[in-house]
Amino acid sequence: MNKKKVFNDPVYGFISIPGPLIFDLIEHPYFQRLRRIKQLGMAEYVYPGALHTRFHHALGAMHLMGEALTSLKSKGHLISDQECEAAQIAILLHDIGHGPFSHVLEHTLLYHVPHEQISLLLMHELNQEFDGALDLAIRMFSGQYERRFFYELISSQLDIDRLDYLNRDCFFTGVTEGSIGSERIVKLLDIVDNQLVVEQKGVYSIENFLTARRLMYWQVYLHKTSICTETMLVQLIRRARQLVHAGTEVFTTPAFGLFLASEPTLEVFRSDPAYIQAFTQLDDYDMWACIKQWTLHPDRLLANLSRMLLERKLYKIRFFDEPPSPDVTVALEEQVLALPGVTEDDLPYLVVRGETTNSAYLSSKQPIRILTKDRGVVDVSEASDLPTIKALSQIVRKFYVAFSVRGYQ
Amino acid sequence: MNKKKVFNDPVYGFISIPGPLIFDLIEHPYFQRLRRIKQLGMAEYVYPGALHTRFHHALGAMHLMGEALTSLKSKGHLISDQECEAAQIAILLHDIGHGPFSHVLEHTLLYHVPHEQISLLLMHELNQEFDGALDLAIRMFSGQYERRFFYELISSQLDIDRLDYLNRDCFFTGVTEGSIGSERIVKLLDIVDNQLVVEQKGVYSIENFLTARRLMYWQVYLHKTSICTETMLVQLIRRARQLVHAGTEVFTTPAFGLFLASEPTLEVFRSDPAYIQAFTQLDDYDMWACIKQWTLHPDRLLANLSRMLLERKLYKIRFFDEPPSPDVTVALEEQVLALPGVTEDDLPYLVVRGETTNSAYLSSKQPIRILTKDRGVVDVSEASDLPTIKALSQIVRKFYVAFSVRGYQ
Amino acid sequence: MNKKKVFNDPVYGFISIPGPLIFDLIEHPYFQRLRRIKQLGMAEYVYPGALHTRFHHALGAMHLMGEALTSLKSKGHLISDQECEAAQIAILLHDIGHGPFSHVLEHTLLYHVPHEQISLLLMHELNQEFDGALDLAIRMFSGQYERRFFYELISSQLDIDRLDYLNRDCFFTGVTEGSIGSERIVKLLDIVDNQLVVEQKGVYSIENFLTARRLMYWQVYLHKTSICTETMLVQLIRRARQLVHAGTEVFTTPAFGLFLASEPTLEVFRSDPAYIQAFTQLDDYDMWACIKQWTLHPDRLLANLSRMLLERKLYKIRFFDEPPSPDVTVALEEQVLALPGVTEDDLPYLVVRGETTNSAYLSSKQPIRILTKDRGVVDVSEASDLPTIKALSQIVRKFYVAFSVRGYQ
Amino acid sequence: MNKKKVFNDPVYGFISIPGPLIFDLIEHPYFQRLRRIKQLGMAEYVYPGALHTRFHHALGAMHLMGEALTSLKSKGHLISDQECEAAQIAILLHDIGHGPFSHVLEHTLLYHVPHEQISLLLMHELNQEFDGALDLAIRMFSGQYERRFFYELISSQLDIDRLDYLNRDCFFTGVTEGSIGSERIVKLLDIVDNQLVVEQKGVYSIENFLTARRLMYWQVYLHKTSICTETMLVQLIRRARQLVHAGTEVFTTPAFGLFLASEPTLEVFRSDPAYIQAFTQLDDYDMWACIKQWTLHPDRLLANLSRMLLERKLYKIRFFDEPPSPDVTVALEEQVLALPGVTEDDLPYLVVRGETTNSAYLSSKQPIRILTKDRGVVDVSEASDLPTIKALSQIVRKFYVAFSVRGYQ
Repeated sequence: MNKKKVFNDPVYGFISIPGPLIFDLIEHPYFQRLRRIKQLGMAEYVYPGALHTRFHHALGAMHLMGEALTSLKSKGHLISDQECEAAQIAILLHDIGHGPFSHVLEHTLLYHVPHEQISLLLMHELNQEFDGALDLAIRMFSGQYERRFFYELISSQLDIDRLDYLNRDCFFTGVTEGSIGSERIVKLLDIVDNQLVVEQKGVYSIENFLTARRLMYWQVYLHKTSICTETMLVQLIRRARQLVHAGTEVFTTPAFGLFLASEPTLEVFRSDPAYIQAFTQLDDYDMWACIKQWTLHPDRLLANLSRMLLERKLYKIRFFDEPPSPDVTVALEEQVLALPGVTEDDLPYLVVRGETTNSAYLSSKQPIRILTKDRGVVDVSEASDLPTIKALSQIVRKFYVAFSVRGYQ
Repeated sequence: MNKKKVFNDPVYGFISIPGPLIFDLIEHPYFQRLRRIKQLGMAEYVYPGALHTRFHHALGAMHLMGEALTSLKSKGHLISDQECEAAQIAILLHDIGHGPFSHVLEHTLLYHVPHEQISLLLMHELNQEFDGALDLAIRMFSGQYERRFFYELISSQLDIDRLDYLNRDCFFTGVTEGSIGSERIVKLLDIVDNQLVVEQKGVYSIENFLTARRLMYWQVYLHKTSICTETMLVQLIRRARQLVHAGTEVFTTPAFGLFLASEPTLEVFRSDPAYIQAFTQLDDYDMWACIKQWTLHPDRLLANLSRMLLERKLYKIRFFDEPPSPDVTVALEEQVLALPGVTEDDLPYLVVRGETTNSAYLSSKQPIRILTKDRGVVDVSEASDLPTIKALSQIVRKFYVAFSVRGYQ
Repeated sequence: MNKKKVFNDPVYGFISIPGPLIFDLIEHPYFQRLRRIKQLGMAEYVYPGALHTRFHHALGAMHLMGEALTSLKSKGHLISDQECEAAQIAILLHDIGHGPFSHVLEHTLLYHVPHEQISLLLMHELNQEFDGALDLAIRMFSGQYERRFFYELISSQLDIDRLDYLNRDCFFTGVTEGSIGSERIVKLLDIVDNQLVVEQKGVYSIENFLTARRLMYWQVYLHKTSICTETMLVQLIRRARQLVHAGTEVFTTPAFGLFLASEPTLEVFRSDPAYIQAFTQLDDYDMWACIKQWTLHPDRLLANLSRMLLERKLYKIRFFDEPPSPDVTVALEEQVLALPGVTEDDLPYLVVRGETTNSAYLSSKQPIRILTKDRGVVDVSEASDLPTIKALSQIVRKFYVAFSVRGYQ
Repeated sequence: MNKKKVFNDPVYGFISIPGPLIFDLIEHPYFQRLRRIKQLGMAEYVYPGALHTRFHHALGAMHLMGEALTSLKSKGHLISDQECEAAQIAILLHDIGHGPFSHVLEHTLLYHVPHEQISLLLMHELNQEFDGALDLAIRMFSGQYERRFFYELISSQLDIDRLDYLNRDCFFTGVTEGSIGSERIVKLLDIVDNQLVVEQKGVYSIENFLTARRLMYWQVYLHKTSICTETMLVQLIRRARQLVHAGTEVFTTPAFGLFLASEPTLEVFRSDPAYIQAFTQLDDYDMWACIKQWTLHPDRLLANLSRMLLERKLYKIRFFDEPPSPDVTVALEEQVLALPGVTEDDLPYLVVRGETTNSAYLSSKQPIRILTKDRGVVDVSEASDLPTIKALSQIVRKFYVAFSVRGYQ
């Protein structure tokens, strides 16, 4: 069988699969599942083009990793074929533990099970299946490989993950001003003392990258409509779980049903194979199939919330710089209670407080390092003429109340 | 409520909603449903970016219609605001009768109910709901409006539908050489005697449009992998229906279940509201939800076909210029029968003959007319120096046999 | 004669000429001259695609002005057809007073004659020729029209000029991360109390615009190679003028010759028609034609500088955060003096000190105003969550010494 | 000195210089001269963005050659580093013998000296200067290297030259529908029996390439305005030469002057170093500098033609399918003679007959070969389902008369 393959990618033109092992990993059902998980969840409700999947992002990141390593090799760094393959596998699989609507799930059903842990779990499973061929990739992914820069390429404030997803998200949303020149940044990377650094002349590209990232946060990831839809989805899941716990029959797909009925700890998730099996079958389709069925459910709250989400009759939202006083919520609750059919018991689902935060750059975490002309290494926020980056590291916090404006049918 | 809105569109930059009536139509559940129907069905199995929906295409076509009418007005043609709105509504809704995987459904469950008829039916329903506001749009859509060129803009060999979808499909697949310069063609349109014509200087753009269209046919719409996946989906539906008819329990969503159990004639579809209600709830999620459940079904054929489709273990295909002799099929059947677990009864599902055809231009249908310098009007295939267009109107027919290469688990 | 015309523009797709008066202005030799003046001077030595002209930029700005006005009208502001035409004329002609390599000329031959003044002079001339048809455009351009926002569209920190040139420069240089979403910003403009404002939701686009602008400054406009080539060109002109003043014969085109021989004050420039006539014949070709001829001149300095510039054997440059001590220059002078053929007298041309500065945003000048949700108007640097914009308004100053590294042939 | 360098290219993103020899060739004044020669001559009069140079095209072709060779190597063909470098040098220098406005010059001053011969001459000169380092590149360029496919990559109906220039011309003109997917075609190339072939699945890309090429011919290269401007430039040169021969003083740059005064045979060009020296100094700036000066010449015809060209007051043109009868010309001559100031003697310059021809594909020349699925090799025009390619090989001939519509000032 021919294990060469080239994907058309509107973002980079073409993506080539570098070898048979990676070909087989891409063919694996665990990876194919990512075809059915959208990268941006319900952002399509704001940006109709934003339908790209984690599958596509993972391929793109693999491609960009190849470009980065080729560039590093051309600068005289010795990187073996085996290391190249491992780094590409690690980035290919870095998101394999994501479920559908990850942010929502991690706030509800998978509260105790972060997706990074699931990724690692699945990589170990694949490693067994492929007779240890993923050993090095796993060491890189978990930060145990001695050549530290590989880990930084996979997970840091300037990792290949971000370089691909910012680019890709801005392409498919059509928010063109978010473009970050990934292919240029990748050529500006270098290695000093096993650490990833950026050439001095790339400092403005980094600044642009950080600003664009922040723009994408407010414009896309934390867009008010996205917050509203995610809030609604959280309430839907809360309500469905409550009904299940109360013994009411609620349609679910089997995979989704398991998580709705129980809330596994990480330990249980790891030890009971039923969870990993269910998880690897869970995708966007399970969620939507349930929501569609629930529109017919006798519970009015569940049915109406489902219909509202499906027909895009969304909550409204109000933002505050400080936590809003209880008066605000009370007033909104009264307003919602006046809607046809709404009862006191529904209020906790229909008026929801929350907060959201964002910082484009945290030098306290893993700083982005600049290689100066005289071969020194400094944190990008210390590089001269960049007061902006210091400014970008200030954390911005917003508070909100989301609330329904629609009575029941 | 603010009924102004601008969509980000990676293809055209921005799409503005022209007025409150169109805003309300877009908000309607019938139209929102198109968010859940991918334009290119399973082409994403070949082109991972090709996830765009009929919703997005319909918005794009509405935008392009606006551009076309603005251009025609700037050439001195009188077009009223009411006509503009009606034409934009007609193109916005022209595909509202599409179901999920339309080609597959029209070959199976909806054999007697073409999507154009359903579009018309739904437009009439909406017209009632909106107190006759769609009267003119419907007349344009069904070719009854006396200013004939409106109909040609909506449905002809150079209609706005094609101008948008070719552009959009080539954008999201990444097949860049399929780009057709829609925005240029739209500026080259003119009207003579109530007929749509193209200015002489646009003749090479038309030729390019037709060639690109043919390229997209072979490269995307009739790509061998697309044919294989569609063939597999047809067999899946056939099998599920057979089981249902035999009284075996088969999981379905309610909407899908109705069509699996019965095969309505157009007359029945029109007269029994259950059908239209089910249809307007049917989308890609129904299909995938069922396929996912079916992987667990006791019928080995149904379960295995479902798993194969889900995990992208696809049929192979062989093409022929002539209908292949029975020997070919027999040999393939023997080969398939040798696969683990396959039985004689499965063969009609696992070895499938078919044919496919394509012609880029049919001057016999509605010719594309060129306005010559001396204000004459000729069929584009008669315009000088375009032997290629004559060539493009030759029908190409290909025969194939698709067959499984995988035993059962 | 058909005065309709559409230009293909790789940046916006198409640019339409809005009417016969503008058509005639574009046809005028004064405007056609801009075809022969590159927007970015010698930046092509760094970015080979950066060959676009002031002609193209002016057309682009005219197009974008049209888009801005259409958007403002759609928000309910009354703008007459006459105002639209005037605003488009004003932006079309805003750069008509630019000469070739404007920055260089304004530092040498046209020290006393800023290009804005020449633009105004030429607009008055055209106004006479067109019987006063440019009256309103001139009032807008010079800030005398009572509807102040027109002036801000033409000249401010967020004017149409910048919105086009940043976009266009980033397109033709290939510095993709400089893209600013001009078409989006234009849709976000509004008017309050005759002042141009940006809708609240556009605040991140503005931040992105300012960051991108700064990136373009360091990456393109003040790129070290650009500074070197401009420095060399200044020295060439200084040398040629010195020779002319000393009575040595030096080839020049007539237009260039006039400015080389005399250095008019603004008053003289205005009153003696010889200057305006020469100026309107001066373009990039004059400069390059002279440089090419000068390679054969007996003066070794002039000949060698010319050849170096032509063959891209450029000066090197060193940057400093503070004005460098005289020691630095002395050391470099010694180094240059050691090059074959260089004499003491040549040093002032071959070792050149300078400084360069940049600030992306100056709220002291004309602030960019944001229209808040509650219809208030604030300076963008005061809008919450934008410490970066304050940071962007810090002026950055760099000092440099540029010097030759090549002996004479 | 650091001989690594990356160019920003708006078409491909980035172009890397593969090694120090190629770096030095690019730095050479012969190659730098190409910065001053526009790829499309005066097409900028129609497409204001079409200012890209032969320098940029040559770099792009070098890049694409690298991509093609990398792809061929990945398919198992052994290609040495030395061969790679030679092929990239050959394509880099393939156009080095082009002068300014090549088509015009080859019809006038350089009638006996085709640019391919000059390219070869200059490559031999460079080879001497670089101590034979270009030996292999020259053998490839002149078709003497035994591995024939290298020659086909450099010069054939599907060579890297065309793959770059079509792409690049369509990018900078903004004629987006001319895009040909060069990067895809390059990946589809293969080698059989030392011949370049295209994989079967690329047959539609080839068809699209040929159609796009034809579209670019009529839309850009043979656009009526391009024909008019070229005709005017030919007449200008004819007139200037006539004046020179008659002993009238006419300003020229030295390089241009030599060719205006004499018309060398290929033999003379080769043997007298004055010609090659002048030629390597000749570029667009010489032409425009002269035209600008000539507007002041006492010869009214020369002065007026120059001004008309400069101010874009162009000839009109009429096309004919057959050679037009003398009546047509006579009538036009009478019309032109009626223009103010025109005399009988001017007519041969102001009314000009010509013809133009184009064929997108000539299978008689070097056919484009398709590698069929069963490893056979056929001419693309014989591949099934491509009647269009046969159609594309029909030669189209158009006749025209171009004529002035403007009297003298």
